[in-house]
Amino acid sequence: MFAVLSLDMGAAMKTLVLTLDLVGTFVFALSGATAGARRRLDIFGVLVLSFVAANSGGIVRDLLIGATPPAAISDWRYLAVSLLAGVVIFFWYPLINRLKSPVLFFDSVGLALFCVAGAQKSLVFGLEPVMAALLGMLTGIGGGIARDVLLSNVPAVFRSDIYAVAALAGASVVVVGDALQLPTTATAVAGAALCFGLRMAAVRYDWHLPRARTPEHADGQREVDERDDNR
Amino acid sequence: MFAVLSLDMGAAMKTLVLTLDLVGTFVFALSGATAGARRRLDIFGVLVLSFVAANSGGIVRDLLIGATPPAAISDWRYLAVSLLAGVVIFFWYPLINRLKSPVLFFDSVGLALFCVAGAQKSLVFGLEPVMAALLGMLTGIGGGIARDVLLSNVPAVFRSDIYAVAALAGASVVVVGDALQLPTTATAVAGAALCFGLRMAAVRYDWHLPRARTPEHADGQREVDERDDNR
Amino acid sequence: MFAVLSLDMGAAMKTLVLTLDLVGTFVFALSGATAGARRRLDIFGVLVLSFVAANSGGIVRDLLIGATPPAAISDWRYLAVSLLAGVVIFFWYPLINRLKSPVLFFDSVGLALFCVAGAQKSLVFGLEPVMAALLGMLTGIGGGIARDVLLSNVPAVFRSDIYAVAALAGASVVVVGDALQLPTTATAVAGAALCFGLRMAAVRYDWHLPRARTPEHADGQREVDERDDNR
Repeated sequence: MFAVLSLDMGAAMKTLVLTLDLVGTFVFALSGATAGARRRLDIFGVLVLSFVAANSGGIVRDLLIGATPPAAISDWRYLAVSLLAGVVIFFWYPLINRLKSPVLFFDSVGLALFCVAGAQKSLVFGLEPVMAALLGMLTGIGGGIARDVLLSNVPAVFRSDIYAVAALAGASVVVVGDALQLPTTATAVAGAALCFGLRMAAVRYDWHLPRARTPEHADGQREVDERDDNR
Repeated sequence: MFAVLSLDMGAAMKTLVLTLDLVGTFVFALSGATAGARRRLDIFGVLVLSFVAANSGGIVRDLLIGATPPAAISDWRYLAVSLLAGVVIFFWYPLINRLKSPVLFFDSVGLALFCVAGAQKSLVFGLEPVMAALLGMLTGIGGGIARDVLLSNVPAVFRSDIYAVAALAGASVVVVGDALQLPTTATAVAGAALCFGLRMAAVRYDWHLPRARTPEHADGQREVDERDDNR
Repeated sequence: MFAVLSLDMGAAMKTLVLTLDLVGTFVFALSGATAGARRRLDIFGVLVLSFVAANSGGIVRDLLIGATPPAAISDWRYLAVSLLAGVVIFFWYPLINRLKSPVLFFDSVGLALFCVAGAQKSLVFGLEPVMAALLGMLTGIGGGIARDVLLSNVPAVFRSDIYAVAALAGASVVVVGDALQLPTTATAVAGAALCFGLRMAAVRYDWHLPRARTPEHADGQREVDERDDNR
């Protein structure tokens, strides 16, 4: 993703973006490893979930746009950062578990970076604007979905606050900017800022999307809550 | 899928096929949205399940035969129709829930169209006959499998009446017709009709495939029934 | 996979490798069919799980390295062997269930063959050494993961004895041998032997990987055990 974003950036900007991208990978990997440790997986399972949570979104996007092998497979740094996060969780899980708000902060940074980079890469590969925005969103949320499916849970993003909407908004800024031929760097920064801001606001003010009204399944709520406990 | 089917068709036929294909997408999307609404997902989750249930079969087929980006990603109409179905379910779920038999009818139409179009596209991409028939079946049933996996259920198609067999029969007609060099349109219509007829007959006369005899797991039945309730 | 391994082999060696590769496919398919029969799927579901358990690892590897269509889709023998295993389980499940130790033996043979062949194919497609080793491991364990996800279980490989580590060790021998320009056949045999030996030793001496310490989820253990019963 680094290469795509950097087309019109200077060297200092490049270093900044690469750093943030790897930070995003690291924090997403933390979330995967934490979910695995909670289900009492062994060290191998924890490491797989680290990698899956951090890289599935990008891998699926790359398969869909025909960019094989995916960046997460061909650049060793994504793997290294993912495994590092897994090892950290495996040995210091009780410690990390207390750092809730920094993790949330970096997770939002990661989401912002991933949705912007995913949209930009999809545009470079010639996808239509609406699909590029959706693939940007997928880059941001895909890892969490794969993590939850592997643990046999309904993906949290389908029920949580406006996580996916924030990613879609950020990716859309990139796509609209591209259509208006605005400078790539400016729209990338604006998109990432919008995604980050929306996500932090949603957490702070407890924003949620509405759920479908299904009166005949009123007892479904209990089953949902039980499953959430496993997460 | 439209383009493949239309190779030797007139304009009127094209319009008919496109209409039916989008009807199939719409109804499969309804099934995904309904499953999501029952599990009390938010509006985003419902829309994702709409798209997944309607398009996963075709997307996986396109990835397997190397046709990237998949049609469902590059043609906006599949997305639009899928999201429309999700919105309809989200706001009028109790109403739609009463229309059981029209939904079943259109679902069978969708299955018939998808299995035929999937087999034909696989042949065009040079796959061997048996695999083309199986990929036609996968096009028809893949969406339902992805929907169930995302909701953490065992796919209904592994247990239900002869849904997959009907899709395989329809796809096989296309493949056999291609081997005998019969006209494409005729075999497509015959394959779709066979799939549709088998499926409707299976529902009407309650046909089922046999299950494995596993006496030592006799109490497994209860667990199966509980899970089916969630669907 | 046969073609890749056979680059520097004589005709007798080719026949041996093909035989072992199909034996591996057959035994992995047995494991998928058995899991399906235990959950009381119908004959179609059992056959799908046979194919998925035997071929998912190779299919995902081929998608990731850009080798479309995947070998399991373009060579009918993998399909035929997979379906044969499914039929055997469907009709003679109680009989097969008693043959625990031969199944375990052949499963280890399959794992050894798949991890070596997967690593070699990834090298041929130009992947970096570390990723080639990981894709070799994925070829060996991917089928079991897909089988468990379809049945709504947490993948057994995330919790079991050193199954994945054995596959990674075998694949690494191939990759290191390639870097040192050792003869392909020799490293393939050595890698397969190491994987097989590690796996058999792990079963015999009950070796396990450590689990994360999560004292605050001490009651998670019970839920884990219940799920294991379904497998």
